Amino acid sequence: MSFSERIVLVPIGYVKTTAVGDQVKDKSTVSQIIIDESFQEGLEGIEEFSHLFVLFYFNQLAPKQSTLKVHPRGRMDLPLRGVFATRTMLRPNPVGLTIVELLGAEGNVLTVRGLDAYDGTPVLDVKPYDPWDRVENLRVAGWWKKLETENHRGN
Amino acid sequence: MSFSERIVLVPIGYVKTTAVGDQVKDKSTVSQIIIDESFQEGLEGIEEFSHLFVLFYFNQLAPKQSTLKVHPRGRMDLPLRGVFATRTMLRPNPVGLTIVELLGAEGNVLTVRGLDAYDGTPVLDVKPYDPWDRVENLRVAGWWKKLETENHRGN
Repeated sequence: MSFSERIVLVPIGYVKTTAVGDQVKDKSTVSQIIIDESFQEGLEGIEEFSHLFVLFYFNQLAPKQSTLKVHPRGRMDLPLRGVFATRTMLRPNPVGLTIVELLGAEGNVLTVRGLDAYDGTPVLDVKPYDPWDRVENLRVAGWWKKLETENHRGN
Repeated sequence: MSFSERIVLVPIGYVKTTAVGDQVKDKSTVSQIIIDESFQEGLEGIEEFSHLFVLFYFNQLAPKQSTLKVHPRGRMDLPLRGVFATRTMLRPNPVGLTIVELLGAEGNVLTVRGLDAYDGTPVLDVKPYDPWDRVENLRVAGWWKKLETENHRGN
């Protein structure tokens, strides 16, 4: 294969939410995914799963606003890390991945909890989450644990 | 936004494996992800995580080989379901998502266990897996549980 290859995707739908700014990061936020009607048939049986992966495109970025190293969450007190070692949107392919709870599926509309994407964000795919996606024994970076500890303290 | 929008991505690397055919589905299979050297810097610190999400492009499909409903795993005894309710590669955007164990990171090469992708598959992104990605209470479809029960019986 060649690295000059280009891969072309199409939005299958978009995010509809009244959440703005940091509200979208709140894991209790409820939003909707409006699937293009031409793809609606692809949703059949999705309500049999409680959780979904949502792949979406960070279309809020300026073109070429990419980098290879970041301070996680923009925190200068955290170490500089490669973008592939973080979940930053500033990555070569600005595709976001979030696990959401599926609250309802009606027609071409999915109602979900925990989708940290802005109103109008193009959605590329939804996939069911299954028990094989649950990793029991895992190790994460020190900076991740530091952030998590702070969050539990309410900072 | 418009559904006529097109989203263009680039491979950040590709899969290198000696596994062929059904061997790639074996969750113990070890393979490598060769990251393009221009993106190598983006890997810094990735070894601090034990597990990664890998997004890859199903480039083995014939153009337009897409559909909206499938029998899961091609099993005619299982109900017809929408592609978004399954993990089939036959989806509008043929992007695969697999969670792998990171065994090693050296230079531009990641050694991983459990990547069900063929040799030469373009990789679009890798992201660290963290405890928020682990869903404790989930519900899955009946067909999924049926398949899983069979696998445990060794079928």
